[in-house]
Amino acid sequence: MRNIKLSIKYDGSRYKGWQKLGKTDMTIQTKIENVLSKMTGENIELIGSGRTDAGVHAICQVANFKTSTTMSLQSMLDYMYKYLPEDIVVFDIEEVNERFHSRYNAKSKKYVYKIWNDKYHNPFFRKYYEHIDKQLDIQLMRQGASFLIGEHDFSSFKSSKSQKKSSIRTIYSIDIQKEDCLIYITIHGNGFLHNMVRIIVGTLIEVGLSIKKPEDVKYILEKKDRSLAGPTASAKGLYLLDVEY
Amino acid sequence: MRNIKLSIKYDGSRYKGWQKLGKTDMTIQTKIENVLSKMTGENIELIGSGRTDAGVHAICQVANFKTSTTMSLQSMLDYMYKYLPEDIVVFDIEEVNERFHSRYNAKSKKYVYKIWNDKYHNPFFRKYYEHIDKQLDIQLMRQGASFLIGEHDFSSFKSSKSQKKSSIRTIYSIDIQKEDCLIYITIHGNGFLHNMVRIIVGTLIEVGLSIKKPEDVKYILEKKDRSLAGPTASAKGLYLLDVEY
Repeated sequence: MRNIKLSIKYDGSRYKGWQKLGKTDMTIQTKIENVLSKMTGENIELIGSGRTDAGVHAICQVANFKTSTTMSLQSMLDYMYKYLPEDIVVFDIEEVNERFHSRYNAKSKKYVYKIWNDKYHNPFFRKYYEHIDKQLDIQLMRQGASFLIGEHDFSSFKSSKSQKKSSIRTIYSIDIQKEDCLIYITIHGNGFLHNMVRIIVGTLIEVGLSIKKPEDVKYILEKKDRSLAGPTASAKGLYLLDVEY
Repeated sequence: MRNIKLSIKYDGSRYKGWQKLGKTDMTIQTKIENVLSKMTGENIELIGSGRTDAGVHAICQVANFKTSTTMSLQSMLDYMYKYLPEDIVVFDIEEVNERFHSRYNAKSKKYVYKIWNDKYHNPFFRKYYEHIDKQLDIQLMRQGASFLIGEHDFSSFKSSKSQKKSSIRTIYSIDIQKEDCLIYITIHGNGFLHNMVRIIVGTLIEVGLSIKKPEDVKYILEKKDRSLAGPTASAKGLYLLDVEY
């Protein structure tokens, strides 16, 4: 069997997330599996690097599948480009070692969270940026974020639905940039719990609005209590940026 | 009567253009007039700086209306922000001299045309950028554009539906910038005929693809024949950027 690795970009607005889900075909995984199954005449199972929730986007999601097809990689790419909905684009394809597994082999991931920080919302960004109408202080946000760097138990920053055994993860960096009204929060870590990025962002937004102090982030982390952290920031601002192997 | 000037941003994707049109309420003018009429209890007529076609966007459109309301400017702005659809945002308001007229007093306008120039389309830009899948040579496009600068008869670059008496306009500048796969064509002129920007862009795209030579633009301009120019570029890439008074 050939093992094929895909790099995928998607606008998650219309979808119920990455993961196959009951009878709906409105998940990214289902849309791609259906096209791949039709393309190969096989029953394709697509393994993603991890789930993205409903409404979350991907600048680069990685997935792989096994197939016996003899099609060239370029033909597969062209076929997917032709038949996938226009909000899902497979932009790179590679044949990999048969043992490569998108989820198990992922060493680290990067997410970016995009905020439009202006009194009025921006009509062009309403599906792609979180809108915060009060001025965020990014110096305070950077101070708050610094307490999260390193290996920690992130129990305070996971949804109650999270089913992972361990809540210990390592965050390598949190970079916060502002250009005019645009704020980009880029988080790099070895793995993320359910809603972890969105709860971190929701907490940093409260720090940026002076609802919380930067050092509160340290306290919240230590207490391992979800109720102390900020709200879960909305899905539309979140993008899976990269998966490293 | 007070004379109120508005600065407006809109995502034109859903609309049949700026101008009031028969019975449909899906025009930008109608949406804003309806909110203003409800706000003031008067029958408001909104004068735009000019029409934008179906699907064309505005980063800054200017319009004005007369009213006897005693409401503060800030209250009007807040009211419009609350009741307009989320793809139309009035972001600035000003009380102006009673003789100010958005269309008659406009001295010049700027448009920007946005192109995503990559083999595959970008799922996030599909409503906001024209997609050109072959590499555009922007040096050739700049050479072609140079022939359009100055006062000319732009008959070759207007739609047959154009009803303006004179086809003579002045283009002050055409600036073409590329950053990775993004191309921005910014055109500044004293006025534009129907579809003029889109036909200029359609022609420059053919120059960038070497379908036409840069010096063909000079010939097309001189011949005053619409059939010689390139196709009308799609509406979704076009933005009214600024109106100067």
